[in-house]
Amino acid sequence: MRRRTLLAGGALTLTAATNAACTSAKSTVDIRPPVVPFYGPRQAGIETAAPANATFLALDLKAGTDRAALARLLRLLTDDAARLTQGVAPLADGQPELARTPARLTVTFGFGPGLFAAAGRPGPVQQLPAFTVDRLQPRWSGGDLLLQLCADDPLTVAHAQRMLVKDSRAFATVRWVQRGFRRGAGPQRNVLGQVDGTANPQPGTDAFARAVWNDDGGTTLVLRRIRAELETWDAVDTVGKEFAVGRRLSDGAPLTGRAEHDPLDLTAKNADGLPVISEFAHAARAHVTDDRLRIFRRPYNYDEAPGADGTPDAGLIFASFQRDVVRQFVPVQRRLDEADLLNEWITPIGSAVFAVPPGCGEGGWVGEGLLAA
Amino acid sequence: MRRRTLLAGGALTLTAATNAACTSAKSTVDIRPPVVPFYGPRQAGIETAAPANATFLALDLKAGTDRAALARLLRLLTDDAARLTQGVAPLADGQPELARTPARLTVTFGFGPGLFAAAGRPGPVQQLPAFTVDRLQPRWSGGDLLLQLCADDPLTVAHAQRMLVKDSRAFATVRWVQRGFRRGAGPQRNVLGQVDGTANPQPGTDAFARAVWNDDGGTTLVLRRIRAELETWDAVDTVGKEFAVGRRLSDGAPLTGRAEHDPLDLTAKNADGLPVISEFAHAARAHVTDDRLRIFRRPYNYDEAPGADGTPDAGLIFASFQRDVVRQFVPVQRRLDEADLLNEWITPIGSAVFAVPPGCGEGGWVGEGLLAA
Ligand code: HEM
Ligand code: HEM
Repeated sequence: MRRRTLLAGGALTLTAATNAACTSAKSTVDIRPPVVPFYGPRQAGIETAAPANATFLALDLKAGTDRAALARLLRLLTDDAARLTQGVAPLADGQPELARTPARLTVTFGFGPGLFAAAGRPGPVQQLPAFTVDRLQPRWSGGDLLLQLCADDPLTVAHAQRMLVKDSRAFATVRWVQRGFRRGAGPQRNVLGQVDGTANPQPGTDAFARAVWNDDGGTTLVLRRIRAELETWDAVDTVGKEFAVGRRLSDGAPLTGRAEHDPLDLTAKNADGLPVISEFAHAARAHVTDDRLRIFRRPYNYDEAPGADGTPDAGLIFASFQRDVVRQFVPVQRRLDEADLLNEWITPIGSAVFAVPPGCGEGGWVGEGLLAA
Repeated sequence: MRRRTLLAGGALTLTAATNAACTSAKSTVDIRPPVVPFYGPRQAGIETAAPANATFLALDLKAGTDRAALARLLRLLTDDAARLTQGVAPLADGQPELARTPARLTVTFGFGPGLFAAAGRPGPVQQLPAFTVDRLQPRWSGGDLLLQLCADDPLTVAHAQRMLVKDSRAFATVRWVQRGFRRGAGPQRNVLGQVDGTANPQPGTDAFARAVWNDDGGTTLVLRRIRAELETWDAVDTVGKEFAVGRRLSDGAPLTGRAEHDPLDLTAKNADGLPVISEFAHAARAHVTDDRLRIFRRPYNYDEAPGADGTPDAGLIFASFQRDVVRQFVPVQRRLDEADLLNEWITPIGSAVFAVPPGCGEGGWVGEGLLAA
């Protein structure tokens, strides 16, 4: 098992399901660990090192889905997720052969405001305030129940998605599906070519826990579909691109430093007495020093079919986890909204907010704390 | 470099471009071999072991694109492909950082009937005859110029696609884009859960060359988008599914054998005197013994967003390479059209045919034999 598998989202207890998977591994032709544990106090897929492929799936609850039905749905989906992530086919699986390659699959549940309304419980998350940069499309926004599926293998994601959608059909409709990708290994770059993720709280550290995990093991997720204006971005030279972010394209180092992880020096001046990193640079505007106010970004790229004339349809599925949306995400987004050189080349076209409930123990289900009578 | 990289489509000459890539590898942070050689008598991406991600991109030539313009386009795209596959950014690359992770990228060119018409040259490939199973949609069919991009890393595919589309904009429009995936490693299964690829001619063998490569280094490509009727397929039990193909789901072995690569025994009878493998089973109907009449299948899966009600939109991007479409592909497809138990669960919704010209040497370009004055 590779080192990074061990970082798996706090869900460190090896469970019976895992053991079952490991046993059956020996008897089938194509089960391939590693697996990421499913059960635990915190959901996997957050602190877990992000694999190459992800699908974000938003469901809307049908009118009749009340608290009791919701509990049935979540029991079912939890059971599916617990099995699929361990390489074990759910009972109703029409292609059980495809379940045997978990490829570090994680399934992470998020609860939108509509889910709390259906449950008749006060919702800990509200929709975001409007931002002037927003050009939001309903088809990429909102959703009552989010499922984030991540795995190294795209067929594994497709199969897990199919199972979960199938088992939710009686209770919910599909609102949107967003498919994203990252480099399978090595340094991450986004579709704009930038090194992405540098100033993140590092998984496994106290700083991470302070930014992301609430005491109950829950957190929140903000999902923004952000179009990259690649055509005009292409026309900018390297100096201009680096100025917009405050970091070098070649290796992600701050313009005031030598190596990727050197701190940003926002006071450094050049020979003309001007700041080396503009106060309007993305990294400067987004910068937060207090650990408890930082956000953890776990974005994926998207790239849909270009238009007939070749116009690209690409950008970021920006996903950030933080204890509290209003205290942590909103202030950063507000500063970026007011002024961020990068705004010329990025446009939010989708937006959704979810509470991410704690994980669950074996025999339990995600959301039980909220929905159990 | 892994063993399978060495199989790279006959294009075995290490070129200056490769060497350049290897040199620059040392000076950048994130170039990651392996690379698949681009130049050679046969194009890469056919005999090359198929990586996890593929984009099939069909372009239509604009009205003004005559033979001379077509030659300019193909020079440009060849140059882009030669560089990108070796981890070197093309000159006009807006995100050169993304070029440094070739991840076994291959770019394979196919010429549709319309390209030959534009060039004023006799076309070696015609559209396929109609089949009764066809439910073809224009949006997934046809195309003058095909680019097949395959790589281990999805960001590499997205970046290469962007470059090639950008450089073709003056000459062509995008007709369709199909994104496909396979298991990144290990035994291949398709979205129906079946072991797929067993009875293929094996890359690197004489049998492969006899089926696929013409003496000039060219071949042909048939691309069929085939929808999988997953909902009804799910309802079939294992016995029924295995009967439809004539092979076991668990390991792909023929119903008359023990291991995946055992030969099909189409004469074996069960206790009731009935054939063990039905004469209408897919593998029985598709079976061809003469090496020169076989086809080489290099399919990918597709999985688009399901409908609001959860209806899946998944299937195969069936890609087959063979010397001659009419002699090799058409008879197999005709037999399957007449009778194939699998037809109940598969529906061709797109179709296109391309001549795949030979590869080229350094300084040359793909299509020069056809288009050079
Ligand atoms: C397409 C949209 C975006 C792109 C391309 C982008 C790109 C980048 C890049 C290249 C960096 C520097 C490297 C790093 O630390 O990861 C960065 C940093 C950062 N970004 Fe973004 N970003 C985008 C959207 C956002 C949004 C919507 C937010 C939050 C509202 C955000 C918050 C941050 C934060 C907090 C940092 C770290 C700043 C620091 O402390 O140094 N970004 N982003
Ligand atoms: C969604 C559509 C299809 C599916 C799911 C499918 C599936 C399969 C499976 C599971 C096998 C047995 C394993 C193997 O040898 O790879 C097979 C064999 C084969 N298929 Fe298909 N197939 C499809 C379409 C086609 C089409 C369109 C053709 C050609 C017109 C074709 C030609 C063949 C051939 C030549 C074999 C090998 C037969 C032998 O010699 O044993 N298949 N296919």
